[in-house]
Amino acid sequence: MSRFFSKRYAELTPYTPGEQPQDMAYTKLNTNESPFPPSEKALAYAAEHTKPLNLYCDPTCHLLTAKLAEVYGVTEDMVLVTNGSDETLNFAFMAFCDEENPALFPDVTYGFYPVYAQLNHVPFEEIPLTEDFSIDLDEYKKRKGTVFLANPNAPTGKAIPMADIEALVAADPDRVVVVDEAYVDFGAESCVPLVKKYDNVLVIQTYSKSRSLAGARLGYAVACPALIADLNTIKFSTNPYNINSYSAAVGLGSLLDDETNKAHCKIIAENRVYTVAKLKELGFDVVDSSANFVFAKHKTVSGQEVYEKLKANGVLVRHFTKERIKDYNRITIGTKEQMDVLFETFRKIWG
Amino acid sequence: MSRFFSKRYAELTPYTPGEQPQDMAYTKLNTNESPFPPSEKALAYAAEHTKPLNLYCDPTCHLLTAKLAEVYGVTEDMVLVTNGSDETLNFAFMAFCDEENPALFPDVTYGFYPVYAQLNHVPFEEIPLTEDFSIDLDEYKKRKGTVFLANPNAPTGKAIPMADIEALVAADPDRVVVVDEAYVDFGAESCVPLVKKYDNVLVIQTYSKSRSLAGARLGYAVACPALIADLNTIKFSTNPYNINSYSAAVGLGSLLDDETNKAHCKIIAENRVYTVAKLKELGFDVVDSSANFVFAKHKTVSGQEVYEKLKANGVLVRHFTKERIKDYNRITIGTKEQMDVLFETFRKIWG
Repeated sequence: MSRFFSKRYAELTPYTPGEQPQDMAYTKLNTNESPFPPSEKALAYAAEHTKPLNLYCDPTCHLLTAKLAEVYGVTEDMVLVTNGSDETLNFAFMAFCDEENPALFPDVTYGFYPVYAQLNHVPFEEIPLTEDFSIDLDEYKKRKGTVFLANPNAPTGKAIPMADIEALVAADPDRVVVVDEAYVDFGAESCVPLVKKYDNVLVIQTYSKSRSLAGARLGYAVACPALIADLNTIKFSTNPYNINSYSAAVGLGSLLDDETNKAHCKIIAENRVYTVAKLKELGFDVVDSSANFVFAKHKTVSGQEVYEKLKANGVLVRHFTKERIKDYNRITIGTKEQMDVLFETFRKIWG
Repeated sequence: MSRFFSKRYAELTPYTPGEQPQDMAYTKLNTNESPFPPSEKALAYAAEHTKPLNLYCDPTCHLLTAKLAEVYGVTEDMVLVTNGSDETLNFAFMAFCDEENPALFPDVTYGFYPVYAQLNHVPFEEIPLTEDFSIDLDEYKKRKGTVFLANPNAPTGKAIPMADIEALVAADPDRVVVVDEAYVDFGAESCVPLVKKYDNVLVIQTYSKSRSLAGARLGYAVACPALIADLNTIKFSTNPYNINSYSAAVGLGSLLDDETNKAHCKIIAENRVYTVAKLKELGFDVVDSSANFVFAKHKTVSGQEVYEKLKANGVLVRHFTKERIKDYNRITIGTKEQMDVLFETFRKIWG
């Protein structure tokens, strides 16, 4: 830290992205990327339709926003596209949380939520998951504040039905509920239909997982026009040209071939069933997952040891040191071949 | 504004990007874009070297950062790449301004500075330019606070020599001086050499103008390692994957063919000389510019009328309504052909 760094941020602990070691070729099951390349049609569309790069991109991201609105059956003023869904999350912490509206989220969830709360000097409360890693929504109903729910949750993979989230949204029309659906396309129920009925729910999705475009950085929010207008006030005060022209084009191209994305999600869901069965054979307890990853704890080998020895043998999984989940690893669902490498490596090490 | 929008931002007035009307084909001289397409070699490099998009981009943006460091003769830990230079500016307001360190900048400069100050709840003072639109650095030396200088300044185009900025930097080692060099490559003196001598100067540049990549959204900061580390603390708490893989690749490709960029800058500088002479013939007073635009005031026609009638006739220039500069328009330097369209249109309207 330099002597110039503002005291405001002196205590800030940044988010730690999943490691990307370059020392060898790993079977990479640690950052929930899709093992499938993006749709060829999407890439071809981008190659042909990217606005000439010497010109500024469209700050309203009109073409992509309109197409997303069409896909989700809402109006264009109900969608905001951002530089990854992380940017939407930050905007939501800025717009809808403050001293009077603390942020509420689970103790075990996406690790960026507490960072955004700290970055924005927003009070927050981490509400413990139940013993079996479920989110007890009654605990949220008791409290005042803006709720952030990853659904399916990360790193557990557990999902909540839309009806349960609707009950939370309806219970207090004076609070915003943010539903972070980064992993929804792999088997959970989306809350997008709620944005047409309620003005206090904000749904966030991403191209990073189910559309194989983590490297293009595209996320989006869907909500009533007033909430989207608030987020736009923040966006146009932060980075009006947040979406580059190439990503805007490839994102639109991807929607024009969403059947390819959906076919990939179906394979991932099948591979998840396969993976869970194999992991159980190998002595793991596995949390029920609706996402493109599973959260697994071995009956005898510690989480740290599983992570370290797999890494030493060329397989990367994600380990968290937080006390409550330190016995677990989060394992991305890749191709069947990648998962077989994991199982073979495990057997090689532990027999 | 929704009823949920935090009171913190209720007074915030977002930045207004230059208009991009779609109702007809304009000669577009209003947003300081390059009239030249990006280097063909840069585009070819990106087509070949973009990391597969299903994988996350590199959050350290290592390859591009290392190449920029090489170009500017500094170490890699002295460079930070951001999603446009606006993102660096916001990070700098966050990191280096607060109640104890107000932001200081000219009353006439890049319109985003007061927005960033408001967004971050940073006190700020707008220090008037002198009568002839010069920046009087003595006024800054008298005050405590973090200085933001666009050099060349926008929308005036006037530049300050490096030696004068060095004197400001050296006068108070306890303040950070941020030099926003968005337009430096068109004829001003860069302060990058100062970052090797002083730990309290931060230089910001962009690919948007001189490298013909406004649509790729690439900006960067060059400073001592400690200041860059501070900005990285903010970045990794805001949006670690801020640079998408395509832009990282095209940005690197552009550096591998910087002679093309430099040749384009030379043409723009020549066209500026041509433009200034023609504008004077047409009755304009023109501020001395070192940028890819000129700031011009007609002797008899109001700034508003010049803007409106040119627009009605298919030529876009940028008009600001701020009292002190409302008689002026900022005119981007395009190709000679584009400038001739401007002059012919002007003659057609005003004879």
